[in-house]
Amino acid sequence: MVMSSPLPTAASLDPDDALICDVFARACPSRAIMENIVGKWGVLALAALLEGTYRFNALRRRVDGVSEKMLAQTLQNLERDGLVHREVQATIPARVEYSLTPAGTRIATQLVNLLEVIEAEAPAMIAARAGQEPAG
Amino acid sequence: MVMSSPLPTAASLDPDDALICDVFARACPSRAIMENIVGKWGVLALAALLEGTYRFNALRRRVDGVSEKMLAQTLQNLERDGLVHREVQATIPARVEYSLTPAGTRIATQLVNLLEVIEAEAPAMIAARAGQEPAG
Repeated sequence: MVMSSPLPTAASLDPDDALICDVFARACPSRAIMENIVGKWGVLALAALLEGTYRFNALRRRVDGVSEKMLAQTLQNLERDGLVHREVQATIPARVEYSLTPAGTRIATQLVNLLEVIEAEAPAMIAARAGQEPAG
Repeated sequence: MVMSSPLPTAASLDPDDALICDVFARACPSRAIMENIVGKWGVLALAALLEGTYRFNALRRRVDGVSEKMLAQTLQNLERDGLVHREVQATIPARVEYSLTPAGTRIATQLVNLLEVIEAEAPAMIAARAGQEPAG
């Protein structure tokens, strides 16, 4: 992973000039993008949307514990970064649906792999937190 | 993913009684464990340690931008959860080294997969942030 030149602007992006991103480098713009994805609400919203399209309130129920404000902000960031697609249907009342873009799907797939490993490891980790190993 | 009964204590953990964890459920203890891992500093520290053992200051240089306090707190949480092993060598001055446990290695491997996808997608996302698609 090589550090990119500091903060290239979109105008400087050229598809023929492959941009090397490095999330370890604080000046690399991929760091800020990573931060949006790996916040707990970003992780859970993306993983939920891999299950299918959600309306806002249904997604809020799925991502148990998220506030309306935090979910709205999370979705707004993910939409701005091109990971989530927001579609307003011309019904009365208007119906707003959220889904993953192709890039969002690729990232959410990795997140679900990660969450599955975390869930598999969690029982042992809960025991470690409590300062003891599971008996047996 | 099924919701576990609320907040089992370590004492209630029985290896014959498989605990089903669900990070989507706010009451599941795996949620708190996930939050530690998916914070940006947890992600970067675990991914760095997959490269090998690090001393504190070298790890701090690798995880560009982290403060001494935040890295210490992150490592302490990861150690408590059984993902990071902290070893104090009896040299003068004492040398403290951090490495991944087997569970930490399994999770860090998934994190590196995730970071690689994020880095690959980042150029297009940087363009999306700037409100334009890459030309071509």
